[in-house]
Amino acid sequence: MESQRFSMLCRSAVLAVVTIAGVLGLAKSVAAQAITDLQTPDTPLVLKAQGSFFVGGEKAEQTKMELGDLGPGGHITLNQMYVRYMVPQNGAGNVPVVMVHGATLTGKSWETTPDGRMGWDEYFVRKGHPVYVPDQVGRGRSGFNQAVLNDVRAGSALPANLPPWLRFSDEVVWPNFRFGSAPGAPYSDTQFPVAAVDELSKQGVPDMSFGMPRPSPTIKALSDLATQLKGVVLMGHSQSGPFPLEAALLNPSAAKGLVLVEPGRCPDAYTDQQIATLATLPVLAVFGDHRDTPTGISTRPSWQISFDSCQALIGRLKAAGGDAQMLNPPDRGVRGNSHMIMQDKNNLQVADLILQWIGEHVSKRRGGSK
Amino acid sequence: MESQRFSMLCRSAVLAVVTIAGVLGLAKSVAAQAITDLQTPDTPLVLKAQGSFFVGGEKAEQTKMELGDLGPGGHITLNQMYVRYMVPQNGAGNVPVVMVHGATLTGKSWETTPDGRMGWDEYFVRKGHPVYVPDQVGRGRSGFNQAVLNDVRAGSALPANLPPWLRFSDEVVWPNFRFGSAPGAPYSDTQFPVAAVDELSKQGVPDMSFGMPRPSPTIKALSDLATQLKGVVLMGHSQSGPFPLEAALLNPSAAKGLVLVEPGRCPDAYTDQQIATLATLPVLAVFGDHRDTPTGISTRPSWQISFDSCQALIGRLKAAGGDAQMLNPPDRGVRGNSHMIMQDKNNLQVADLILQWIGEHVSKRRGGSK
Repeated sequence: MESQRFSMLCRSAVLAVVTIAGVLGLAKSVAAQAITDLQTPDTPLVLKAQGSFFVGGEKAEQTKMELGDLGPGGHITLNQMYVRYMVPQNGAGNVPVVMVHGATLTGKSWETTPDGRMGWDEYFVRKGHPVYVPDQVGRGRSGFNQAVLNDVRAGSALPANLPPWLRFSDEVVWPNFRFGSAPGAPYSDTQFPVAAVDELSKQGVPDMSFGMPRPSPTIKALSDLATQLKGVVLMGHSQSGPFPLEAALLNPSAAKGLVLVEPGRCPDAYTDQQIATLATLPVLAVFGDHRDTPTGISTRPSWQISFDSCQALIGRLKAAGGDAQMLNPPDRGVRGNSHMIMQDKNNLQVADLILQWIGEHVSKRRGGSK
Repeated sequence: MESQRFSMLCRSAVLAVVTIAGVLGLAKSVAAQAITDLQTPDTPLVLKAQGSFFVGGEKAEQTKMELGDLGPGGHITLNQMYVRYMVPQNGAGNVPVVMVHGATLTGKSWETTPDGRMGWDEYFVRKGHPVYVPDQVGRGRSGFNQAVLNDVRAGSALPANLPPWLRFSDEVVWPNFRFGSAPGAPYSDTQFPVAAVDELSKQGVPDMSFGMPRPSPTIKALSDLATQLKGVVLMGHSQSGPFPLEAALLNPSAAKGLVLVEPGRCPDAYTDQQIATLATLPVLAVFGDHRDTPTGISTRPSWQISFDSCQALIGRLKAAGGDAQMLNPPDRGVRGNSHMIMQDKNNLQVADLILQWIGEHVSKRRGGSK
């Protein structure tokens, strides 16, 4: 399970670094994205409601030192999950969509693209779906448990107790997210807005998933969110690609559809009982192009291996009578999509394919409008 | 400067912890906020645009180990500031408002309140102002520099190189944020929604401000944001209360008004030249009630000291010909406001007073509609 969930975290050696100072603008200040890069839609966004809240969380008692030597020991909340939401004015009866980001990233993944275009969060709302965007537990506005950091600082815990804090370098991203086979060398047909790749770099945050409780508290929080919303489409990406499956197993009745966007790996160890449960739900896996790019990562030499693992899971689900399928844009003549498919130049075209699947496989069965 | 900016971080001893397990629900799982707690406004929110982007950031080269032993060394971006924004459909010409959160918190401070009511972010938009809500550099979706954590873990840096990671305990919050004089014992007139205090607890994230470059990169990012937006009202809270002043000194022409909400302290060391510059801008300080509550913090035994420091700054600005004033709701018969005044039960009433001030002191001078 651990190796599945974090396979995209690339524990092993990656490609040798290519010198790309000119292309990436290294060793210099990064220009702020101009406000004028942010595109304004032609029509207003009309929201019935918007805001944010938390799901889950537990109280923990920590020492004065663990709280940063600020005051006496006391209680704080840990493992809560921040969620931002937008509900369209004319979306009554439509199934909500929950969008979960991948490793070293936050919910920002689904918002305005690096080059200032509309993200999937707003687009799905404009198509009538309430949208909920969490920050995974342990990242972004969900916070994390700082106790061990302060204990190590104070000498009351050993440095070996620290979790690793992961970041993807700009150089690793190019082949691993499949913008091109090497840093600064985009595929001629790449759909990623590579001129704005520095804006993607800014989305990176330290990821201490390896120091988190297992399974990730995010999974239970997603299940609880789905339950509270009385049924949702759960969408995961990359590291969180399998999370919709895991959350659905906790409460299958609240998961109306599962969308796995470029999962690091589809689990191959589910029992027949688990497969039978998941086969009651519509499942869609979504992958981009150039999956044969050598990532240089020994645990997954190419994303084709991730694709194949999902094909295998789809096969098991279908054999159990399930409604599972692969959305592979190249099969439809759509070429050049990257791992960050929700930010690609044709991101709304891909979104339309997912929306069409939701309409046909989730909403009709559910009896809602969409 | 350092002591000013971080005075609210309460380095010293605070109140003895009172046993409040029953009231705070300690040592048990925290119930997720029910979706039904989230209030839906009577009228839709109509947005011309919404989304998110980053301001600033610099490239840094880090070692394989500093990146979490994920791959080879390479470059990442540091010190960028995440900003979420909403622009009202009918807000042409109105001055944008930038809302910056305080210590151990994120931009969530300004969003939906702990008990599910509308936050200032949406309310100011509904009143016609574009609103920009950052996460301070080093927190939330802005990320932070994880290099030293991984270096200490690997043994290539000493634990003493770690910054302290600060959190406010639930017990400290009660007197320090002035919900009551002791944990679980609210003032009879408190405006804070104390029944939902556990939801405020979930807003806490680790704060490594003491490990950040000085001055905080957030200040330069705020100035750059104000410049890009061609003039804004800068609003800071608590730890970031003085940030609007600091950002305005970097580019006074882009700061059209400064709102200091419950600043930890108003700076007392500005030169006459700096005061002359700040006196060209409208300045409003805002404080809540119960400022004589003993915080137990030796560097600021009560928030009255913060209030007095701002009165002193206002005096200097007025003596220099400036338009500076204090908004003290108790003077208007409005009692019981807390340090988290933007989340108080009467938060929109206080917002109206600030909006009135913006209308009279910023927009008229600026020539905009609001």
